Amino acid sequence: MPMPFKGNEYRIEESPTLKSEARAIVLEKFNQPLLLKTFPLPKLREGEVLVKVEAAGVCGSDVHMWEGRDPRIRLPMILGHEGVGEIVEMKGEKQDVYGIPLHQGEKVLWNRGVTCGHCYFCKVKMEPSLCPNRWVYGIHTSCVEPPHLTGNYSEYLLLVEKVDLFKIQSNIELETLVPASCSGATAAHAIDLSRMESGDSVLVQGVGPLGIFAVAFANSLGASQIIGIGGTEERLKMCQSFGATHLLNRHRFSKKERKEAVMELTHGRGVDIAFEMAGEVDALRECLSLVRMGGACMSAGFGEPHGTIEIDCFHDLGRKNLRLQGVWVSETRHTHMALQLILSHLHEFKKMITHRFPLEKANDAIRAMKTKEAIKAVLLPHGK
Amino acid sequence: MPMPFKGNEYRIEESPTLKSEARAIVLEKFNQPLLLKTFPLPKLREGEVLVKVEAAGVCGSDVHMWEGRDPRIRLPMILGHEGVGEIVEMKGEKQDVYGIPLHQGEKVLWNRGVTCGHCYFCKVKMEPSLCPNRWVYGIHTSCVEPPHLTGNYSEYLLLVEKVDLFKIQSNIELETLVPASCSGATAAHAIDLSRMESGDSVLVQGVGPLGIFAVAFANSLGASQIIGIGGTEERLKMCQSFGATHLLNRHRFSKKERKEAVMELTHGRGVDIAFEMAGEVDALRECLSLVRMGGACMSAGFGEPHGTIEIDCFHDLGRKNLRLQGVWVSETRHTHMALQLILSHLHEFKKMITHRFPLEKANDAIRAMKTKEAIKAVLLPHGK
Amino acid sequence: MPMPFKGNEYRIEESPTLKSEARAIVLEKFNQPLLLKTFPLPKLREGEVLVKVEAAGVCGSDVHMWEGRDPRIRLPMILGHEGVGEIVEMKGEKQDVYGIPLHQGEKVLWNRGVTCGHCYFCKVKMEPSLCPNRWVYGIHTSCVEPPHLTGNYSEYLLLVEKVDLFKIQSNIELETLVPASCSGATAAHAIDLSRMESGDSVLVQGVGPLGIFAVAFANSLGASQIIGIGGTEERLKMCQSFGATHLLNRHRFSKKERKEAVMELTHGRGVDIAFEMAGEVDALRECLSLVRMGGACMSAGFGEPHGTIEIDCFHDLGRKNLRLQGVWVSETRHTHMALQLILSHLHEFKKMITHRFPLEKANDAIRAMKTKEAIKAVLLPHGK
Amino acid sequence: MPMPFKGNEYRIEESPTLKSEARAIVLEKFNQPLLLKTFPLPKLREGEVLVKVEAAGVCGSDVHMWEGRDPRIRLPMILGHEGVGEIVEMKGEKQDVYGIPLHQGEKVLWNRGVTCGHCYFCKVKMEPSLCPNRWVYGIHTSCVEPPHLTGNYSEYLLLVEKVDLFKIQSNIELETLVPASCSGATAAHAIDLSRMESGDSVLVQGVGPLGIFAVAFANSLGASQIIGIGGTEERLKMCQSFGATHLLNRHRFSKKERKEAVMELTHGRGVDIAFEMAGEVDALRECLSLVRMGGACMSAGFGEPHGTIEIDCFHDLGRKNLRLQGVWVSETRHTHMALQLILSHLHEFKKMITHRFPLEKANDAIRAMKTKEAIKAVLLPHGK
Repeated sequence: MPMPFKGNEYRIEESPTLKSEARAIVLEKFNQPLLLKTFPLPKLREGEVLVKVEAAGVCGSDVHMWEGRDPRIRLPMILGHEGVGEIVEMKGEKQDVYGIPLHQGEKVLWNRGVTCGHCYFCKVKMEPSLCPNRWVYGIHTSCVEPPHLTGNYSEYLLLVEKVDLFKIQSNIELETLVPASCSGATAAHAIDLSRMESGDSVLVQGVGPLGIFAVAFANSLGASQIIGIGGTEERLKMCQSFGATHLLNRHRFSKKERKEAVMELTHGRGVDIAFEMAGEVDALRECLSLVRMGGACMSAGFGEPHGTIEIDCFHDLGRKNLRLQGVWVSETRHTHMALQLILSHLHEFKKMITHRFPLEKANDAIRAMKTKEAIKAVLLPHGK
Repeated sequence: MPMPFKGNEYRIEESPTLKSEARAIVLEKFNQPLLLKTFPLPKLREGEVLVKVEAAGVCGSDVHMWEGRDPRIRLPMILGHEGVGEIVEMKGEKQDVYGIPLHQGEKVLWNRGVTCGHCYFCKVKMEPSLCPNRWVYGIHTSCVEPPHLTGNYSEYLLLVEKVDLFKIQSNIELETLVPASCSGATAAHAIDLSRMESGDSVLVQGVGPLGIFAVAFANSLGASQIIGIGGTEERLKMCQSFGATHLLNRHRFSKKERKEAVMELTHGRGVDIAFEMAGEVDALRECLSLVRMGGACMSAGFGEPHGTIEIDCFHDLGRKNLRLQGVWVSETRHTHMALQLILSHLHEFKKMITHRFPLEKANDAIRAMKTKEAIKAVLLPHGK
Repeated sequence: MPMPFKGNEYRIEESPTLKSEARAIVLEKFNQPLLLKTFPLPKLREGEVLVKVEAAGVCGSDVHMWEGRDPRIRLPMILGHEGVGEIVEMKGEKQDVYGIPLHQGEKVLWNRGVTCGHCYFCKVKMEPSLCPNRWVYGIHTSCVEPPHLTGNYSEYLLLVEKVDLFKIQSNIELETLVPASCSGATAAHAIDLSRMESGDSVLVQGVGPLGIFAVAFANSLGASQIIGIGGTEERLKMCQSFGATHLLNRHRFSKKERKEAVMELTHGRGVDIAFEMAGEVDALRECLSLVRMGGACMSAGFGEPHGTIEIDCFHDLGRKNLRLQGVWVSETRHTHMALQLILSHLHEFKKMITHRFPLEKANDAIRAMKTKEAIKAVLLPHGK
Repeated sequence: MPMPFKGNEYRIEESPTLKSEARAIVLEKFNQPLLLKTFPLPKLREGEVLVKVEAAGVCGSDVHMWEGRDPRIRLPMILGHEGVGEIVEMKGEKQDVYGIPLHQGEKVLWNRGVTCGHCYFCKVKMEPSLCPNRWVYGIHTSCVEPPHLTGNYSEYLLLVEKVDLFKIQSNIELETLVPASCSGATAAHAIDLSRMESGDSVLVQGVGPLGIFAVAFANSLGASQIIGIGGTEERLKMCQSFGATHLLNRHRFSKKERKEAVMELTHGRGVDIAFEMAGEVDALRECLSLVRMGGACMSAGFGEPHGTIEIDCFHDLGRKNLRLQGVWVSETRHTHMALQLILSHLHEFKKMITHRFPLEKANDAIRAMKTKEAIKAVLLPHGK
């Protein structure tokens, strides 16, 4: 288990140019209200950046962490792994991933995961998302020791040298970009592994942020059909605005009717690629039954233990020449893909952010995500 | 279900240059002795080729067909989907897949599957192995009507225009090439779909012809480690001669010991690619447990219904970023890969043919495969 | 050189259900007016289809053929390799490439190239566009012998068994689909070989139909930037409607200014992928200078001999890790990609067809393409 | 231009456990004898490793640097970018790229290039070989300031935190592994970009270490034919021992005869993949003429400016659907591929090291490479 910070390296000192403290939201006990606390600002080391968090995303997995269902976290901690904001201080020269030099006062989005850069996954297989030393702000980080400010539910955040940055033009509404760093990047990873081709027919199971991104990516990659299956009418409609060509509400069409519909649309073959973005065993099972021979079934929805699926080795797998692909988190290039997707469709993605809260209303934000009242909620630690 | 031949198109006529009849082995009743029968030679249509079968492979799946376990077949029929021989007559000009003009008297290997060339799989997805109109000599063919000679357990075989041919130099022992057309090609398909890279560590479960080919391909593609798991010492040793670096006999090492061995060899990660070539649920399950995060588990062994496997959606699939890929039969380019592999290692592959029988001893050949006494048996309809 | 038809196999007979003659446009002498002639309708063989040509595309390469610049053609001939229309007669059962059964009276688009299905390119390398036996209606076909009707500038066309078909819904305006079969498919081939990724920056040199399709594909595949360079304002504007983000008119910006613009847009790196769709040496040279290290330069514009380019082996190639890829014609799956692209953007593509002519005005159509007055002209042999 | 070291960070201190000085070979003036000098050992920073260089490769490009033909170098410097040796001191815990924990006294091979890990090439395109901040020991490094020991022609070398390491088992002769880090890795890069398939026919132009590795890789990846073209009989013979199936000595066969030979071997098509490993314009030109339609021509030989090639845009590129790919240096995963290749064929690769010299005979080593007397020379700074 990665232990990213060793407090003794961050001796706290007064900074002459900045206020010396930051407010942040702390998770001390599972299922108990999050608390607003104050921490000293850290002293930077070479290559580090202190950012003002202008928008922090509230992720469905934050709800799970708050409920104590994620084994990776250590209390107390500051939640929040999605963020975008402004550079307030940096030690040394830095460039973003596009090679653009960065300066104080500029806007940046940061990649949520930090990887070692030297292991088999980082340097031989070029899949840093699987780096065993990977850790994430607001997931693997405790706030007990300096530098404390290691989650995005905070006014300020310390970014270590290895964090990858994306410079954002100053005229763009930052909160719209927040989803790029988690659900958008994970959907990009799924799309990337799917090796979808232009003209393919695509099924998306689950219409939360992950599923909506899958629809938007499939559309942006030239899918000829995008069939969305979900249970919430409002979210299905949002899928439509992102390019879904056919919508199947689970509450209005039976499993049998859905199968008939998909088979008719695909001339009896099934879809080329099915994306399981719901994290439900039934959804995965339905994907398997609706994908064509030789097709791919991408499973990106399971962020935590959630049951098993029985597969017939001949009918489902061998005879079908099926590709069943699990998708785990994402890496910097997926954040790039998601960010570029949002930048090309700012108007649509703006609508995905249905709820905005000040930092001190973090508990309301968690509730809005838990009840699925919100499609995507963000915290705005410095207002709007 | 493809019905490849319509008898009324093959009016039988006397050929002036050939003997007019051929002996072939007929399966009339499941689990009963195969019978030697005589059929008239067919009259060729444009693009067709009549070949003298010099060696016909006896495949493990032939045993299953003989036992009535394969739903594709219709009795009576001539078994045999693997063959190599000599062109005795051809109607029109033909070239082999390399563009070499073909002539009477030359040696050829034929691809076992015939595909339509116009469907979504043949022309859009470039995966003709999945063509819904695909049919195979000696599997989907009845021998009731002309042209009768549609299985390789025969002195002569009629090849329709769509059969792909590979010219063979006359100085090569033909029977050594027979496995290219089925187990070799299917292993090539598995290797191809695996996207194995030079330097990868590989596990092969099952050490029959399919597994031996997987070992040989992994070796020929630069695997750094090839770990073979099987239950027959003689077959494991053959794996070694084809490049396996580590052998684990199931009867000498427990499942736990095998896991410890593989994890030690791979520094605790598991192998990059695991090949399930046994068609056993336990073998597939073991593959899943021994493949690394982000690795691929290729399942090519299930040629018929044979049970189910339970997969934990989070631990086995999502968190593991697993790729589980079913492999169904093969196509012409896989036969090409297998043929080239054999041609580059003729000396080793010659040893794979452990048993040779004349046509009339076909029942003995089936028995030798059923008891696993033979690694690979062939029929030599015209002797040696 | 393929010689697709042997006249003696098409004995002309009266058909009871059809009118027995068809008018077609014949090229008898280069640079002389095309002539309207009448031919008998052919008798079909097994697997063949007789179609009523409802719209035939007039391609820039038709102009070159008329001028005698294409070494592949033999006079007299009926021009026209792009077409869409209605099935009027078919011999035997047929399905389209999606597996949809076809019937008389239904609308279809046909793939322009016919490939052998058995050679190294068709069956081993899965690149049938490179099949040495490939031939194209209206390019490699003479009209001297039966079946005569072998070019799309005709009321009727005979499609042999090997032609791949795409069923079209009856409510779609057929002429809009015509470009799918040549410029659309060739651009799809270029896109496919480019291995463009979502988020890439793209340059398109040349803004005729080929370039416009490249823009549309790049946009449909999630390019973050699409920079179009051309010399015709109207065509550049059409690029914009298909998703080009930046336009550079060669007559308004110097080569130096264009380079500065591209380098600024790409933070000094150059674009990820450059598409040369103009068939001009200068355009290719500019592409090479504007693509980033490790990027790809796709050259799809050269349909005929047109000069040489000098490449510095170190600076342009080795040190740059450049990929320079020629693109030759296309295959069925590219027509599929282009067709699906048009079907998803019917409204935009309708505008690409700027000129419509009856069959007898074919000379005007050729002129409209030659002068670049038209972006895309079509013939409507049966009116509208 | 990267400037990897800032001397003031390396305060020299006496180490209690080590001797405090190291001898190294310094290039002070181009084309003048290299000089043996003594430098103090550096004090390590977090993550750094001090290694005892047991074998340093003498590369053909070292000769070019010595001659002043490489614009990247700054005098005075210590040459040598290939090395393998023993860990004598390390600051902090480290693992090799396989995740194996490293300890003092263990043997390691180090990757020659150091990349930033954060740019577009490192993190979006996953091609760190193209990182604009990449620098190489013994190429971009001066020895004026601490840590001085920044080239492999030295008794000791300081490896910064970002260097990727490969642990080597203690029973392996280290000097045999040296070529993995430069010519082997670059050939691996070429092979990787070539997307060669099992069964392909391959041409290798140039039979120095780069070409020999290309032959060995092509063989290890299942090439059906490997044709070597070169001018030195001894090197051609070494190609044969690595798997070349046909050898063409330029001095014995004319260009025309070579073309006839290749075309006959490939049934008139040309090879699937041609590797230009000589860095000669004529060699590249010949590759272009011998590769098939749709084939790939890999150009990895040009390490410095060396002339231009004229390409016919239609005949050589468009009509041929050619892929011409430049190859620039390599990255860690290529070193992995080359290292695994050598480890699987230790016996053959041992013969590639034809000359061994003590450190003080570095001038003789340079001469042996310059005259092509040696295939590969190594320095053994601590003897054998």
